[in-house]
Amino acid sequence: MNPRDLSLPEWALSERARKLTSSAIREILKITERPDVISFAGGLPSPATFPNERIAQAAQRLLTADPNGALQYSATEGYMPLREWVAERYSTGGVEIRPSQVLITTGSQQALDLLGKTLIDAGSKVLVETPTYLGALQSFSLYAPTYVQVPTDHAGLIPEGLTPELTRDARLLYAQPNFQNPTGRRLPLERREQLAALAREGAFPVIEDDPYGALDYRGTPLPTLLSFAPEHIVHLGTFSKVLAPGLRLGYLIAPENLHFKLVQAKQATDLHTPSFTQRIAYDVIKDGFLDEHIPSIRTLYREQCDAMHDALAKHMPEGVTWNRPEGGMFLWVDLPERVDSMELLEASIAEGVAFVPGAPFYANEARMNTLRLSFVTVPPAKIDEGIARLAALIRARI
Amino acid sequence: MNPRDLSLPEWALSERARKLTSSAIREILKITERPDVISFAGGLPSPATFPNERIAQAAQRLLTADPNGALQYSATEGYMPLREWVAERYSTGGVEIRPSQVLITTGSQQALDLLGKTLIDAGSKVLVETPTYLGALQSFSLYAPTYVQVPTDHAGLIPEGLTPELTRDARLLYAQPNFQNPTGRRLPLERREQLAALAREGAFPVIEDDPYGALDYRGTPLPTLLSFAPEHIVHLGTFSKVLAPGLRLGYLIAPENLHFKLVQAKQATDLHTPSFTQRIAYDVIKDGFLDEHIPSIRTLYREQCDAMHDALAKHMPEGVTWNRPEGGMFLWVDLPERVDSMELLEASIAEGVAFVPGAPFYANEARMNTLRLSFVTVPPAKIDEGIARLAALIRARI
Repeated sequence: MNPRDLSLPEWALSERARKLTSSAIREILKITERPDVISFAGGLPSPATFPNERIAQAAQRLLTADPNGALQYSATEGYMPLREWVAERYSTGGVEIRPSQVLITTGSQQALDLLGKTLIDAGSKVLVETPTYLGALQSFSLYAPTYVQVPTDHAGLIPEGLTPELTRDARLLYAQPNFQNPTGRRLPLERREQLAALAREGAFPVIEDDPYGALDYRGTPLPTLLSFAPEHIVHLGTFSKVLAPGLRLGYLIAPENLHFKLVQAKQATDLHTPSFTQRIAYDVIKDGFLDEHIPSIRTLYREQCDAMHDALAKHMPEGVTWNRPEGGMFLWVDLPERVDSMELLEASIAEGVAFVPGAPFYANEARMNTLRLSFVTVPPAKIDEGIARLAALIRARI
Repeated sequence: MNPRDLSLPEWALSERARKLTSSAIREILKITERPDVISFAGGLPSPATFPNERIAQAAQRLLTADPNGALQYSATEGYMPLREWVAERYSTGGVEIRPSQVLITTGSQQALDLLGKTLIDAGSKVLVETPTYLGALQSFSLYAPTYVQVPTDHAGLIPEGLTPELTRDARLLYAQPNFQNPTGRRLPLERREQLAALAREGAFPVIEDDPYGALDYRGTPLPTLLSFAPEHIVHLGTFSKVLAPGLRLGYLIAPENLHFKLVQAKQATDLHTPSFTQRIAYDVIKDGFLDEHIPSIRTLYREQCDAMHDALAKHMPEGVTWNRPEGGMFLWVDLPERVDSMELLEASIAEGVAFVPGAPFYANEARMNTLRLSFVTVPPAKIDEGIARLAALIRARI
């Protein structure tokens, strides 16, 4: 802020606004938008995967055939053919998802805000993974919950750790079972079954956030939690990773008795997601495009994931460990205890390499010697160069 | 809900979600989407005013020239050239608005949600007009304020009524000075000066919501509150009424020390408004298109406003009064005391005519013998027919 702001009135901010702190990391990472920085920080999908021409054709077609439909106000619930498409896509293996369970959202981030609005009071207990998705913490925190970190290991949350004492009166458990942001880990089949059983028994409501499920590099998808308990799970999906994030299109699937509250909350929040972008997405995907398109995204990202794994193996000193994700966009690095990844970030940016420190992904006690690397934005040759520079900085700190 | 839902789990809803009630009016008005109903209910801009071809050309151009810009994640604050355009448009008559004060929102509705998030705690005093915009009540109510209705007359809120007792510790005053929804009334110049002076003196923060300012049918615009107190007013604008609502594009102008909190809240709410729609809007308007386009919208709506006024004068029985708005989309009807507009609506829909009863526009004590008519969606011939039917029903109730 410039000096003149000193003369401005003080706004009487809400308690939640006073608690919103400017993220130091976000400020640092703004620097990384410089083209000379090798950034493993952002979760930006590779623009090479955006179907530009198809989107342009769809826009043209819609504005010729039915401009009023594309440009007028529309239903809060979303564009019905798109809702039907979502319901059909999730209705597999004997599971039936109804279009009335689907709500189109302005990105998955909005689904998190709507769930915060409808499920969280000040002090409500919210169960999260250790670590968990930073964007979910940001959304939920506006509604002032009390977070409880669920015990986890290399494969994600441990259902046996969800004891009645830990989970009593929890308003929700939030999890990303597939290639979690930030760790890249995937919840095994048996744990999915156990977790879904707990949801079915009414132990606590489960939010299954699944932005990365389609980005499965080994071709061995696991069933969603939703498929085990379609009336007891809220499932979040997005078109950001398989079509284009700038369209800001996500969706949620919820039991009808929660869905209608989410619709009311959405009406008060932004009336509806843009008619135009919803219809473009439907026009692009309605004839099976994603099934042709997603394999090419997988191939690209798998190569970049392998390149990062190879670079880490080649350059990192002993005492540094990481996982090899089977999908998604991120991997997670554990540094020796004495290395603080916040301090490392400052040094690293001076060397033209960026990443996200691990601490902000923890709801409560953070591990400072962790960091998240994205492998989807930077091409393989640059990945090796960036990891080499980062490894040198880490070596100097051990 | 169908019978099977009885077996569904009860969700532990937040207090705010439990208070969200399904609007009886909204359910009734769903019927009015039937093409055989003459609907004066919706605030739907006339599709005849949508610049379909320009939007299609812009979409084509953007996806050819810079697909990555249109389809990638982008800044929470909004597309900088669009923010600069807004700042420049409001920098007139010696007032300087900086792009750093502008935040692009997913429709004006989102600006209301973000203001609720940043300014309202449970029980906070919020001052509103009598009646006021229903959508603002819906947004703010999620944050559980205590509403105080400000004294008003045919010209809008009365600054003398804003006594220190009434306004003490108010978190905000919310007003639509131009052609208010629902009444169509416009705040006179002198009252604007008085209200802006109160804001400058720090009596309370003022939110100036201005969706209809451009729809001025007599060509006699009045200065915004913002222009009198650019560092003390939050101004909301929208492209929904002058371009197309299905793009869901609005903006707010706020002092920087509040703006940065609004940006943080928006990041947690939907990350950013779609890159694609923001760039389309900018491409369409950057060379002065709105200044050519808006006069044609004004001409169309003025004719429809006149047609409604004439139809009311021709058909309504004695004891029914209404205003003749100088702009906007709505006019407001006062019925004899004994007529309840909720009951009238049910009868009216059976006759194929819809409107919105006045009661939901009151924050506290409602006047049941009022209703809102929109004149922008229905062409003049149908306006006369619909008003004739409505008048017959009212006559039968006097």
